[in-house]
Amino acid sequence: MQMMENHAKMMPDSGMDMTMMQECIEACSACEQACTMCAGSMMGEDMAMCSGMCMNTADMTNTMMRSMMRPNGMHMQSMMAMLDATMMMCTACAEECMKHADMNEDCRMCAETCRQCAMACQKMMDAMKSMMPTS
Amino acid sequence: MQMMENHAKMMPDSGMDMTMMQECIEACSACEQACTMCAGSMMGEDMAMCSGMCMNTADMTNTMMRSMMRPNGMHMQSMMAMLDATMMMCTACAEECMKHADMNEDCRMCAETCRQCAMACQKMMDAMKSMMPTS
Amino acid sequence: MQMMENHAKMMPDSGMDMTMMQECIEACSACEQACTMCAGSMMGEDMAMCSGMCMNTADMTNTMMRSMMRPNGMHMQSMMAMLDATMMMCTACAEECMKHADMNEDCRMCAETCRQCAMACQKMMDAMKSMMPTS
Amino acid sequence: MQMMENHAKMMPDSGMDMTMMQECIEACSACEQACTMCAGSMMGEDMAMCSGMCMNTADMTNTMMRSMMRPNGMHMQSMMAMLDATMMMCTACAEECMKHADMNEDCRMCAETCRQCAMACQKMMDAMKSMMPTS
Repeated sequence: MQMMENHAKMMPDSGMDMTMMQECIEACSACEQACTMCAGSMMGEDMAMCSGMCMNTADMTNTMMRSMMRPNGMHMQSMMAMLDATMMMCTACAEECMKHADMNEDCRMCAETCRQCAMACQKMMDAMKSMMPTS
Repeated sequence: MQMMENHAKMMPDSGMDMTMMQECIEACSACEQACTMCAGSMMGEDMAMCSGMCMNTADMTNTMMRSMMRPNGMHMQSMMAMLDATMMMCTACAEECMKHADMNEDCRMCAETCRQCAMACQKMMDAMKSMMPTS
Repeated sequence: MQMMENHAKMMPDSGMDMTMMQECIEACSACEQACTMCAGSMMGEDMAMCSGMCMNTADMTNTMMRSMMRPNGMHMQSMMAMLDATMMMCTACAEECMKHADMNEDCRMCAETCRQCAMACQKMMDAMKSMMPTS
Repeated sequence: MQMMENHAKMMPDSGMDMTMMQECIEACSACEQACTMCAGSMMGEDMAMCSGMCMNTADMTNTMMRSMMRPNGMHMQSMMAMLDATMMMCTACAEECMKHADMNEDCRMCAETCRQCAMACQKMMDAMKSMMPTS
């Protein structure tokens, strides 16, 4: 998105790779949508954990996405902890969703989107770590 | 998204135009992102109304989007009222953002995204009205 | 909350009854919490509608609450439409939850909280209507 | 809240201190409200960072709160990382808000609420760590 490029200009010295951040934003957005849909179409008692995890993942990816969109409010350490939390939640949610992938196509697609989001967060994390001053 | 097509199959008799709903979901998602970015990059005292309206619009479009993704929880009347609220908020936000469009490219793009979201909500509204039983 | 009183001072001529607004904010917050908990503890196939409605209500009441907390972004018409939507969703959710009230104590309490939220929104709506210029 | 006690019964062997969790939920809710209000009443160019941080904190505390309310979706490791992120964001936000505490009473109260939330998250974290199996 073009707005992101403008923001890149606002943070000329931040060293942040804005293309990578944009990819992470899009992965979070896709993940929020897939998880909202997956949690919202649940049925059956054995889906309780899947549904709960999807709700958590939807909220976390939305919060993650928004925080990447606010250059003014950016706080490196809490963003890295948030990336960590999102990554772990997405991975756990993907694992749970895969258990029902055979019966439920939504779950299979949700798991795939969660995995991609976890990978995008990992990439951001690695980039942010390499930017941190070594002491 | 493919998940949406699965949902269409879940609601075979609902008469809902799933392509239109998908467009509305995407317009809401784009609007949430543009407004979050616009509100998050505000500076200057004369931007207070713009920022506050963008925050409202971001929250409303996210809620609107999610409610379209939950076939199980769908309640026609409140969804129509929510579409109404989103449409009005997007339109008001676009007007406010346009006041700073010359100085701030973010505001110009945010305004455009808000207008497109208002239009997508209007389309959904018209379609839903035509589905309502005439008494 | 004391912060609300400060805001009342910021809007001296708005004519808004800040005590009533504060009550509505608290009712929305309680409703979001009850619905999040109710949706998150669902089990059983016949709970799908209850769970979906609770998720919608949780998101709507959070958005409603936040929009009342942003004097700068306040837009009367969309706020009234949003109150309308929240009221209808809370009422529908309460009805659905009451169907399982005998089996599930969470549902009974969630229904009660939804009803109180609908009433608080109705009060706000009536107050806002009486503030509108008659033409 | 009474619903919380029911949930405690649902998790008899979890070892989770439900009173402490309820306190953390309430601290998160208060913090979301204070930060939403603080971000929404910003004015002046030197408030940009305060406003951005408050928006992040509001979203994070809401996500944190909701995840504690979903026993079915609970995933210990990501919850601990999320507590970590919330704690750091609240602490950073409190520091930023304190810079304007003299001029802006909202900021002073917001800072205090953020600090209390950080402390409640720290307590939860300590309790969860003590529950983890030592290897």
